[in-house]
Amino acid sequence: MKAVRGKVYLIGAGPGDPELLTLKAVRALALADVALVDELVDRRVLEFAPQARVVAVGKRGGCKSTPQAFIERLMVRLALRGKIVARIKGGDPFVFGRGAEEALTLARAGISCEVIPGVTAGFGVPAALGIPVTHRDFTHGVTFVTGHTQDGGGPDWAALARTGTTLVVYMGMRRLAEIVTALRAAGMAAETPAAVIQHGTTQQQRHVIGTLATLADATRDAGLGSPALIVIGRVVGLARVGQIGLERRQIA
Amino acid sequence: MKAVRGKVYLIGAGPGDPELLTLKAVRALALADVALVDELVDRRVLEFAPQARVVAVGKRGGCKSTPQAFIERLMVRLALRGKIVARIKGGDPFVFGRGAEEALTLARAGISCEVIPGVTAGFGVPAALGIPVTHRDFTHGVTFVTGHTQDGGGPDWAALARTGTTLVVYMGMRRLAEIVTALRAAGMAAETPAAVIQHGTTQQQRHVIGTLATLADATRDAGLGSPALIVIGRVVGLARVGQIGLERRQIA
Repeated sequence: MKAVRGKVYLIGAGPGDPELLTLKAVRALALADVALVDELVDRRVLEFAPQARVVAVGKRGGCKSTPQAFIERLMVRLALRGKIVARIKGGDPFVFGRGAEEALTLARAGISCEVIPGVTAGFGVPAALGIPVTHRDFTHGVTFVTGHTQDGGGPDWAALARTGTTLVVYMGMRRLAEIVTALRAAGMAAETPAAVIQHGTTQQQRHVIGTLATLADATRDAGLGSPALIVIGRVVGLARVGQIGLERRQIA
Repeated sequence: MKAVRGKVYLIGAGPGDPELLTLKAVRALALADVALVDELVDRRVLEFAPQARVVAVGKRGGCKSTPQAFIERLMVRLALRGKIVARIKGGDPFVFGRGAEEALTLARAGISCEVIPGVTAGFGVPAALGIPVTHRDFTHGVTFVTGHTQDGGGPDWAALARTGTTLVVYMGMRRLAEIVTALRAAGMAAETPAAVIQHGTTQQQRHVIGTLATLADATRDAGLGSPALIVIGRVVGLARVGQIGLERRQIA
């Protein structure tokens, strides 16, 4: 028997390049009656959802945006009407994307939800520059954090520095100088390689590579802003300007 | 002009479910003359590489395995003969997979290499249980580490505990008891939720969910072994046995 209620697919669209969609995401998109799309998702992914009504529900720091509660109510309402909803988010839906909150809201409303993981920016974007964030000659791991925490404070940068893991900071651009200062105060060497990468894996990709000492100034001089990732650690020294000569071209 | 030399695609096949391949990976597989496949990659992905000669180059802790140097020499030799090589790795090629070493070897040999990111197990596998590793109500980030470091030691568990990030441990099963002891010694609460997930996202998926105090015994009692991920942090309390009622079924 077919369920009367609809269903929500929480879909990770990957870091930018639409070819980084998964096969599972493509299959879910083909079923969608409605697509709720985040701001930073490449609109070409909608070609896989030809029958879906498209609703842009973008949010962006500092700009006008769709309130999270509105998005969640809309998903619930559509699913209760029997619609198949594709909620398309940048990166992975469970990595810093409020996807968890959306899944919990759906669960409380008794609505079926399937999470389709995507390539998160924290791995895909450095890789596009030839930075292998976990190279075992340089580190035993990687930490992903946001530049600010929910209470308005920041993560414990001293503890993060002590772990020796590569640090990947999401949504940290407005606090870049502050983050660098905190890491140096925690004893991280001024010459630690570091990068800022804006619009990673897309045609608009821009980046600066420097050190903890130079990163904030270099980023300002280059005029880079959000959305961007900050990557800090010895592995950044392997960027393709260095040893790994990777290509960023599309597959020929 | 077409290059005479071949090319190597370092492809991330995702955490297990073959539907988590990216479109870019599928496109690269279609071009491949030779496919070098890791042990843990689902053989169904080879359907996308119908013209490729398949070479299994699996490695597995403790079992007979293909030496890394052999794999790298083979890639170089094939590419120098003009072959298009698909090097298919589980998860993401730059996450704990020696992919960085392979990319560097290829760069030194002057061989074109393109890295195609995949869904890493560290996000995809917890998501399959409804665990959103970065839920902002519980943590400001996530750290991925291996259970042992290259020099045979371990990561600085005390520093990791202090960060307050969710911890995801790859290749840590043989040291599970030791890791738990180190985290508790560092002050992490005995009741911190924790999980072990074996063969995540596949039909063979098995898991135990408990606390830091119970995890080692529960894992042994359940007979779980490698390959498995260890996930530690308050977000584990959201697993679908708890609040998030996610489905693991394939898309209907």
